[in-house]
Amino acid sequence: MNRSLALGGLLSLGLAVVTPAQAQQEPIVRIANLRIEPSQLEQYKAALREEIEQTSLLEPGVLTLYAVAHKDRPNHITIFETYANQQAYEAHLKTPHFLKYKVGTESMVLSLELVETTTIKLGGQTVPEASP
Amino acid sequence: MNRSLALGGLLSLGLAVVTPAQAQQEPIVRIANLRIEPSQLEQYKAALREEIEQTSLLEPGVLTLYAVAHKDRPNHITIFETYANQQAYEAHLKTPHFLKYKVGTESMVLSLELVETTTIKLGGQTVPEASP
Repeated sequence: MNRSLALGGLLSLGLAVVTPAQAQQEPIVRIANLRIEPSQLEQYKAALREEIEQTSLLEPGVLTLYAVAHKDRPNHITIFETYANQQAYEAHLKTPHFLKYKVGTESMVLSLELVETTTIKLGGQTVPEASP
Repeated sequence: MNRSLALGGLLSLGLAVVTPAQAQQEPIVRIANLRIEPSQLEQYKAALREEIEQTSLLEPGVLTLYAVAHKDRPNHITIFETYANQQAYEAHLKTPHFLKYKVGTESMVLSLELVETTTIKLGGQTVPEASP
């Protein structure tokens, strides 16, 4: 049986055929949990906003950078980050605006937890999709 | 000075005029952190996926329901929820699909932490906006 017949067989069974290249295009989600030195919170938030603005303007592969503060502990920050793929994530870490933010806020950050995730489902009316 | 003149004055200063009704239209972000009974994790995820699918189909005011599992602790789930406004959030809690999920998964959930937040910035290429 040749490859296209094999594919046809799989498709007729209703199975999705995902090649390794396609699998790599799945968005990557990461959660950053930070605790900020309270006396520097406003400065930190200004630097974070600037970094997010620059990212939104310059990086098509960064799908979400959603930054929020916890209402009852305002110096606890969560950033919900979605990247079109692994390359987009790695490229982001090398951009001048990210490096400026990283170095500029280093002394303000009391702790940083990075949570790697596997996606269960990204739903609602605003859904990030990997670049084609 | 009448109201429109006052408004004109503010606008000429470059100030945004936000009425209480507009302020209410700001998206609301909530983070849910759950720990699931490991033996029921697959059942839980199936129920959650179904709930998110129904919400995406039926609720224009639910902007994001992004559900992920933590890679190193797969039974730790985070859901990043954005609602167009307070009314959309309250309406969501009364929908049949949410109530089905809530009651159906109750015995699978070991712990649930709901984090209320204030938005710092929602950026990237996929940004939820409140309904007009």
